[in-house]
Amino acid sequence: MSRKVNIKRYLSEKKSIVEKGLEALMLKADGPFTHHIEAMRYSLFVGGKRVRPILCLAAGEAITNDPETLDNLLPVACALECIHTYSLIHDDLPAMDDDDLRRGKPTNHTLFGEAGAILAGDGLLTLAFDLLSDPRYSAISAESRLRIIHAIAKAAGPLGMVGGQALDIANEKTEFPFQTLQTIHKSKTGALITGSVMAGAIGAGASAEQIEHLMHYGDKIGLAFQIVDDLLNVTSTTEQLGKAAGSDANRGKATYPAFFGVEQTRIKAEEAVAEAIEALRNFDEKADPLRDLAGYIYARSH
Amino acid sequence: MSRKVNIKRYLSEKKSIVEKGLEALMLKADGPFTHHIEAMRYSLFVGGKRVRPILCLAAGEAITNDPETLDNLLPVACALECIHTYSLIHDDLPAMDDDDLRRGKPTNHTLFGEAGAILAGDGLLTLAFDLLSDPRYSAISAESRLRIIHAIAKAAGPLGMVGGQALDIANEKTEFPFQTLQTIHKSKTGALITGSVMAGAIGAGASAEQIEHLMHYGDKIGLAFQIVDDLLNVTSTTEQLGKAAGSDANRGKATYPAFFGVEQTRIKAEEAVAEAIEALRNFDEKADPLRDLAGYIYARSH
Repeated sequence: MSRKVNIKRYLSEKKSIVEKGLEALMLKADGPFTHHIEAMRYSLFVGGKRVRPILCLAAGEAITNDPETLDNLLPVACALECIHTYSLIHDDLPAMDDDDLRRGKPTNHTLFGEAGAILAGDGLLTLAFDLLSDPRYSAISAESRLRIIHAIAKAAGPLGMVGGQALDIANEKTEFPFQTLQTIHKSKTGALITGSVMAGAIGAGASAEQIEHLMHYGDKIGLAFQIVDDLLNVTSTTEQLGKAAGSDANRGKATYPAFFGVEQTRIKAEEAVAEAIEALRNFDEKADPLRDLAGYIYARSH
Repeated sequence: MSRKVNIKRYLSEKKSIVEKGLEALMLKADGPFTHHIEAMRYSLFVGGKRVRPILCLAAGEAITNDPETLDNLLPVACALECIHTYSLIHDDLPAMDDDDLRRGKPTNHTLFGEAGAILAGDGLLTLAFDLLSDPRYSAISAESRLRIIHAIAKAAGPLGMVGGQALDIANEKTEFPFQTLQTIHKSKTGALITGSVMAGAIGAGASAEQIEHLMHYGDKIGLAFQIVDDLLNVTSTTEQLGKAAGSDANRGKATYPAFFGVEQTRIKAEEAVAEAIEALRNFDEKADPLRDLAGYIYARSH
């Protein structure tokens, strides 16, 4: 398999494109709502790997190289980052994980207050659907854009990301079976990662069969991503993580290492990555960034 | 002007249609996310006048009597109620208005906890966009549905409802000019009311000119609605309101009666209603429910 793509460079280039997109699309902090907009902008621009928007763009590139279509995927990618950011703001709240640090910086509510942070999250979630339905991006057909909105709403909604967070909170400090951990991972983290891949694929005009394979890819890298996150929480220092290390164990959260130990967990991550790459077997070299991204997720665990 | 429509009966019939629609469209409380779904269902079905969905349906009926189109407006109407309900759940939170009662019943967070209530709100907001993009409702074109989503996202977003709530919270216990009160009303309450009217009009295939008139109608009844709410908060008992009477004044919130006194405020509500009805001058008798609705809002103030 050819490996022309230097994944680190690819990620860095795409991150820069996403951040320029966010800067261009995000509301400017002026007018009567300045303070609210500042709260949203703070968390959106405080940092982050921009994994979900990059997955969306990479999935689009795996299907097409039409520049106008790919250009119109950028607001979709940015909407995904708005949704991810809102979920972090709400997860960090005192009523939820009560975290003071995120990405090495103060969390939203420590700067803007609880009410300000709740509303910043609400604003970003709503803004995502504003971007997804913006009439300017008509290179992607109205039908495809509706399908993208539906896929993302399902992924982020009560049977996806929000439901997963609710389940996670409800099960804190309780013993629960491995199956519940799987459900939490799949919904809380996996759903939006798969949704990001699907949004890119739909926007780029993928066939039903291609979408099915990419969904499978998304499910497997979503799993790998969460397993590696669990691992890093156990094995890293607070400085490396930018948030409190060991916080999952302290909070009594079940994790993969808690069920299987560190070494078996690493093997499970490796297996998930291999399955993700296998799901792309019918795709040509345009899917190489997706393949390399899968490997890169695993590499983070070392 | 003919007044064939008995507005009370109309509202009662439409409320029943909306509630049946919500029951049919809303997630059932089973599976791993049962508790989260119960939290959403609690607030969605605890009561309410269903003003926004009824406005959406009435605006649709002012434009068309095609049964299939009107049928496909019902999920749009239900999505608006999901958004309104989410906003009430978040407004009632301890970090915001800290209300224990809503519609005479315990608020969401008193039953499901703060985290549960925040997530119930997040879930309902996301579910709204799931409903709006559901491929089953294809009697309304994909183009029109995208326009509906865009109008609703704008109305509910950072420059609309969420921004208004942020501004309201930020200005609590401060003295501010009348202009700020107007901005809060227009964004926090008015935007989604106007958005509801616009969503119905767009879905029913209204012309640009018709939409402009209906927007004006929506703005004016939104204003009347908020003025009457302010009035009721001053003049009613807790039992009548189903929430703490006089709570606005206790919380140091600026209101219309605080600026103008009760009698002048009543005159302003009356003027707004008259302007709303005037905005419908080019519409035929299919718009009578909208006309009567405007009058009904004013009648609540007595």
